[in-house]
Amino acid sequence: MNIRPLQDRLIVECVEEETTTAGGIIIPDTASKEKPQEGVIIAAGKGKVTAEGKVLGMDVQVGDRVLFGKYAGTEIKVDGKAYLMMREDDILGVLEK
Amino acid sequence: MNIRPLQDRLIVECVEEETTTAGGIIIPDTASKEKPQEGVIIAAGKGKVTAEGKVLGMDVQVGDRVLFGKYAGTEIKVDGKAYLMMREDDILGVLEK
Amino acid sequence: MNIRPLQDRLIVECVEEETTTAGGIIIPDTASKEKPQEGVIIAAGKGKVTAEGKVLGMDVQVGDRVLFGKYAGTEIKVDGKAYLMMREDDILGVLEK
Amino acid sequence: MNIRPLQDRLIVECVEEETTTAGGIIIPDTASKEKPQEGVIIAAGKGKVTAEGKVLGMDVQVGDRVLFGKYAGTEIKVDGKAYLMMREDDILGVLEK
Amino acid sequence: MNIRPLQDRLIVECVEEETTTAGGIIIPDTASKEKPQEGVIIAAGKGKVTAEGKVLGMDVQVGDRVLFGKYAGTEIKVDGKAYLMMREDDILGVLEK
Amino acid sequence: MNIRPLQDRLIVECVEEETTTAGGIIIPDTASKEKPQEGVIIAAGKGKVTAEGKVLGMDVQVGDRVLFGKYAGTEIKVDGKAYLMMREDDILGVLEK
Amino acid sequence: MNIRPLQDRLIVECVEEETTTAGGIIIPDTASKEKPQEGVIIAAGKGKVTAEGKVLGMDVQVGDRVLFGKYAGTEIKVDGKAYLMMREDDILGVLEK
Repeated sequence: MNIRPLQDRLIVECVEEETTTAGGIIIPDTASKEKPQEGVIIAAGKGKVTAEGKVLGMDVQVGDRVLFGKYAGTEIKVDGKAYLMMREDDILGVLEK
Repeated sequence: MNIRPLQDRLIVECVEEETTTAGGIIIPDTASKEKPQEGVIIAAGKGKVTAEGKVLGMDVQVGDRVLFGKYAGTEIKVDGKAYLMMREDDILGVLEK
Repeated sequence: MNIRPLQDRLIVECVEEETTTAGGIIIPDTASKEKPQEGVIIAAGKGKVTAEGKVLGMDVQVGDRVLFGKYAGTEIKVDGKAYLMMREDDILGVLEK
Repeated sequence: MNIRPLQDRLIVECVEEETTTAGGIIIPDTASKEKPQEGVIIAAGKGKVTAEGKVLGMDVQVGDRVLFGKYAGTEIKVDGKAYLMMREDDILGVLEK
Repeated sequence: MNIRPLQDRLIVECVEEETTTAGGIIIPDTASKEKPQEGVIIAAGKGKVTAEGKVLGMDVQVGDRVLFGKYAGTEIKVDGKAYLMMREDDILGVLEK
Repeated sequence: MNIRPLQDRLIVECVEEETTTAGGIIIPDTASKEKPQEGVIIAAGKGKVTAEGKVLGMDVQVGDRVLFGKYAGTEIKVDGKAYLMMREDDILGVLEK
Repeated sequence: MNIRPLQDRLIVECVEEETTTAGGIIIPDTASKEKPQEGVIIAAGKGKVTAEGKVLGMDVQVGDRVLFGKYAGTEIKVDGKAYLMMREDDILGVLEK
């Protein structure tokens, strides 16, 4: 990927939610609460910059499979393919292998 | 559980509120105020990160039976079972054994 | 009580306001301003945690008879009895003996 | 008074505004702006607590005759008499003798 | 004046805006933007208190002729005369002699 | 000019936007976004004061030709001439000679 | 360019989005989310100033091709050509060559 996200921003490739993958995360269709989505990080910034200018490292890295809120991020297209650009704070959790 | 929550996030398995368990927490049906709910922590992040990047430990741990507000957290499903992902600040108290 | 409140949270047992107890606090019925209520602290957390992770002690303790705003806290029921869970900041003052 | 206000809270006994006391503070009846009120401090907390837990002293003390905004504070009744509980920040100024 | 303003508060005596004083500040009647007003400081607090409790000095003093926003401050009356109580931050500038 | 602006405030004399000055800044008439304006600084305060009371210097000075947002500042009149009083943060950029 | 942006402000020349440039960023027409835009930085300030007055460097520089939100910045015209003035925080990412 030829985009360098600034600060604590990430580029995430969404994973279509398969309804019945064993061991996977399944989002209930009828839930009234906001549903999280799943994706893979394909680019990451250096981390959040504190008010004093110190760069904090990232708690996630390229390749991590992550959960994030349904309305997180901004859609961008690179070479005709859609991605989401979001901040590390938008990540709810990492799916461990 | 194969999800690692980031920062001070927790994954909680809700406990259905039995109406008359002796010694348990019973939520009044007719209360006009927001009612807290009960659950068990099954995954926890490392803790909140301060503005300077220091990780503060968690005041709760996996296995704790906790109280939280009715609208706290985001519903997720793992292997077909629903959980709530929330932040440590959403936890009102821990039920001591 | 078998609940440990987190941080600066408190569990308070409300005291019914007797209209004419000598020396007691009487809330005027016709006041247009928000009326405070009276109660006794029956469980208390360790204190507020600063942004740097330092735990500040509590200025009130279990057994203190306190005043708090009418809409402070969240109602919980333990063994069929109702209590209020609130934060130390919701406490207006302590009734000295 | 048998109430200990927490932090930077104060208990103030309101002084009825006499319309023509020489040398006193007179509130104009027709002013369109919010009018301040006058009172005497009868109980005071130790002072505001900083985010790091340091207690700052109070700039007013019991006995001070003070000015405060018309809607400052919460009404409480002690032994059948009404007082206002407010914060030091609600005090506009002190009437020097 | 027998009032001691707390912190960074000031008591200002308003100056009626003469329409054509040479060298003076004239407020345009038809301006659509909020118009500043002119006055003289007759009492001043010690200065703003930082979050750590340090008192910062004042950048204006008693006797200064100042500009302030039209809706700044709270009207008070002392000995039948109206003044404005405001904060140092409400002062836009000082008219140099 | 006989006005000393406090802190990071500035007094700016607006420059009427000539529609076709070569090399100048021309504001498009039909833009739907908020248009910046141009002016010259004729008085400046010492700079912003930090929460700890330290005075930060100004990044602009008297004589600078500057760009600022259309709704920045408060109009004042000195000797019958209109100026704008604004804060350094309202300045978008400086036109270099 | 003869404009010096203050602090962390940037002047960006927008790049018209070609619909099918190979390897370029293509914004989907039908996306319901806010679409980012592309441009080149032609002037940059020294960087954000912390609350204590320290200047933090910029993470982007003149010549960088960047992505930013559709509504970021303020339009200005220099020598008849339109640019956007925005802050570094408005930049989502840098297109690496």
